[in-house]
Amino acid sequence: MSNPKMRSPKRIIIIGGNAAGVSAAAAARKTDRYAEIIMIEADDHPAYSRCGLPFVIEGKIPRFEDLLIYPPNYYRMMKIDLRLKTTATAIDKEAKTVEIEDSHGKRDVLEYDSLILATGAYPFAPPIRGRDKMGVFTVRTLRDGGRINRAVSDAKSAVVIGAGLTGLEMAAAFARRGIRTTIVELLPQVLPAMLDEDMAILVQEGFEKEGVEVITGHGVDEILGGDEVEGISAAGREIAADLVIIATGVRPSVELAKEAGVEIGKTRAIKTNLRMRTSVEDIYAAGDCVESVHMVTHAPVLSQLGTVAIRQGMVAGINAGGGYAIFPGVLGSAVSKLFDLEVGATGLTERQAEQAGVKTVVGFTMAETRARYYPGALPITVKLIFEERTRRLIGGQIVGGEGVAPRINALSLAIQKQMTAWEMVQADTCYTPPLSDYMEPSIQIAAQVALGA
Amino acid sequence: MSNPKMRSPKRIIIIGGNAAGVSAAAAARKTDRYAEIIMIEADDHPAYSRCGLPFVIEGKIPRFEDLLIYPPNYYRMMKIDLRLKTTATAIDKEAKTVEIEDSHGKRDVLEYDSLILATGAYPFAPPIRGRDKMGVFTVRTLRDGGRINRAVSDAKSAVVIGAGLTGLEMAAAFARRGIRTTIVELLPQVLPAMLDEDMAILVQEGFEKEGVEVITGHGVDEILGGDEVEGISAAGREIAADLVIIATGVRPSVELAKEAGVEIGKTRAIKTNLRMRTSVEDIYAAGDCVESVHMVTHAPVLSQLGTVAIRQGMVAGINAGGGYAIFPGVLGSAVSKLFDLEVGATGLTERQAEQAGVKTVVGFTMAETRARYYPGALPITVKLIFEERTRRLIGGQIVGGEGVAPRINALSLAIQKQMTAWEMVQADTCYTPPLSDYMEPSIQIAAQVALGA
Repeated sequence: MSNPKMRSPKRIIIIGGNAAGVSAAAAARKTDRYAEIIMIEADDHPAYSRCGLPFVIEGKIPRFEDLLIYPPNYYRMMKIDLRLKTTATAIDKEAKTVEIEDSHGKRDVLEYDSLILATGAYPFAPPIRGRDKMGVFTVRTLRDGGRINRAVSDAKSAVVIGAGLTGLEMAAAFARRGIRTTIVELLPQVLPAMLDEDMAILVQEGFEKEGVEVITGHGVDEILGGDEVEGISAAGREIAADLVIIATGVRPSVELAKEAGVEIGKTRAIKTNLRMRTSVEDIYAAGDCVESVHMVTHAPVLSQLGTVAIRQGMVAGINAGGGYAIFPGVLGSAVSKLFDLEVGATGLTERQAEQAGVKTVVGFTMAETRARYYPGALPITVKLIFEERTRRLIGGQIVGGEGVAPRINALSLAIQKQMTAWEMVQADTCYTPPLSDYMEPSIQIAAQVALGA
Repeated sequence: MSNPKMRSPKRIIIIGGNAAGVSAAAAARKTDRYAEIIMIEADDHPAYSRCGLPFVIEGKIPRFEDLLIYPPNYYRMMKIDLRLKTTATAIDKEAKTVEIEDSHGKRDVLEYDSLILATGAYPFAPPIRGRDKMGVFTVRTLRDGGRINRAVSDAKSAVVIGAGLTGLEMAAAFARRGIRTTIVELLPQVLPAMLDEDMAILVQEGFEKEGVEVITGHGVDEILGGDEVEGISAAGREIAADLVIIATGVRPSVELAKEAGVEIGKTRAIKTNLRMRTSVEDIYAAGDCVESVHMVTHAPVLSQLGTVAIRQGMVAGINAGGGYAIFPGVLGSAVSKLFDLEVGATGLTERQAEQAGVKTVVGFTMAETRARYYPGALPITVKLIFEERTRRLIGGQIVGGEGVAPRINALSLAIQKQMTAWEMVQADTCYTPPLSDYMEPSIQIAAQVALGA
């Protein structure tokens, strides 16, 4: 018998060192303790929480460095070969190699057994005249955060273009820092991807109460000023601004994947199967660069949330490491705190359901978060969306109150497990006057309204 | 053709006007708008929140009257014939009549089409010597609350016998009012029906930190004093007390049902089917007097929570009114705020699972409620219990943190819908630094620990 040849460790290369990348690396490491794991990151620091940027600018979090998810020694401890300031320039799927280039222009070609694309997304700025002026920013990176923070110190007025979560969180941060702030949104409501109009109006009123002007249904025609921004024109008006934020969404970074022959989906993001494998053998993808499947409609969607990136990264890492895991899809669950107003949503809005051809029944309620007679109960507005025939929960929206994040999580689990309105009415919830009411508005009460009972 | 005979409205009699009774009445009214609904209540006021009693005594809620669930005109508006200070003395199931007696001793016999037993429960006091002394109380009714409140004004020290939720809430109320308080629990831990020992110790430490002595594993040997209580003896010690609370649970009030020939279950409560119908045609039952089926074990259990009473009352009322509804069972979901410590649980504890012969895998975690870098994140301890083979969630316990009620509700829905640990790890939760973390401790983190991943 011949000597058994020693098997060399598997090499897993991860392109992108943010939420999806570090989650994939951790999962791959737990799946294969001997694998060689190389993480390629163009930036000069490891993973950080993008979601925290507005709160540093608001002043709630002391320093941008607080947003780093792991200290540098985490990567050594996990035996992850983190290569910062390094760019992946090409993939050869036949040879199973990645070409990389460091900040000194030094190139190298690395072989891989498994490759994970976690290339993320880049801010999309619509072609508004004047968008290149000094004082106009997008919000994506720590560097963006630092630049905006410096600009904020001198700013007296700001315009935020786009009333998605990032736009609203930035606007709230500016207002809290005493800057006169205006939000301009092309669509007829704030948070158009997250809330129906009847719920969004409550959020808009919250901003107006804090002195933020909200202009909906109008695009920005031009960003005004010389080299430096001085304002914008929109809705036939000129609005002064020392600072303009363009927060009109992000686009998946898929150039590298495309050039390597990886299939791109109809949402212009990388297509994967349930195991987060792309169309190419041994190449996985996760995070903002990936197309997801919606748990309710089963249609392809762009999710681009940090939570999804982490879940997809985990699945990609397990599979790339030789394990087995599938990704159940997305619901778009999101939450924010805007001034003191908690806002959250999961699943389909009534409008999204209609667009998907799903007939719905709605349960709407305005209630309180605790027993009526207990001091400190807060008003909470809930909208639940059920599929008409089955009375299955397919979406939920909450504005106001407290504990909105865990309430949205409960609704998300209910949608994932195809819970019906009657099951919600009869759910075994918990009650104590200081913390809750005997009928939970976001479970029993709204479901009962939907049943017309 | 003969003249069609006018059908007279159906008569529904409800015995008991608290949580189960009023819920049944409301549901019956919505199901049959013409029915005659008579509610018999021995007390001199309509339904109130028993759960609120400790918080009135603590001083958080101004008056006992604030606990009344509905104003008197609610009953008129709903056309519910509420007969206070009236007792149901006998049921004739063959004749379908109820014998009642008002406070003047006037008797009447009422026919029913449907009868709902919502007779509740009474406090069970173990046969401790001296339990009839002045200054010794149980906690069940508004009247009890008023008596305790008057006694508290003069009390310098108190002993609470029994460390269930009621006992602990009373002890916390006393401590908050500056009374030196001792808790004595026969079992080796506090909250024995709700938490495992490893979680209960955190609650016990919370009381000790507030200066409340907690004696576990010892019964009270005697209540000391002359006519008035002066203390207790337990664990070989004498402990002074101007006030003693016996909070050792309640027993279902089933005498009336038993005498009428209604079947009683092995838990000594009224047995019903899924529609909350008793063994007798046209007699339903709901609330603290009823035996429930546990959603996980399918075994009969005594639940005796207000939330369950309301859900069962709804089902009984719909069915008694001629509609159709089934009751899905109980999980024992409960929550409390003890000083500033939030505590909650749902489903089986590890110990209860073991006693039921269920093999388990546990996920335990100590984490924080929000992004680590966001100010105000609170430590939260979570224990999840999964069935070994299927990795289905069967129980959850949380001590500390914030938003524990909605977190327990999420776990309750997950148990009800037979969610597995992997489904929880991959649940589509929501994240924003001021309100939550990207991995929810009570969903993803604890489930991941249970998977050993």
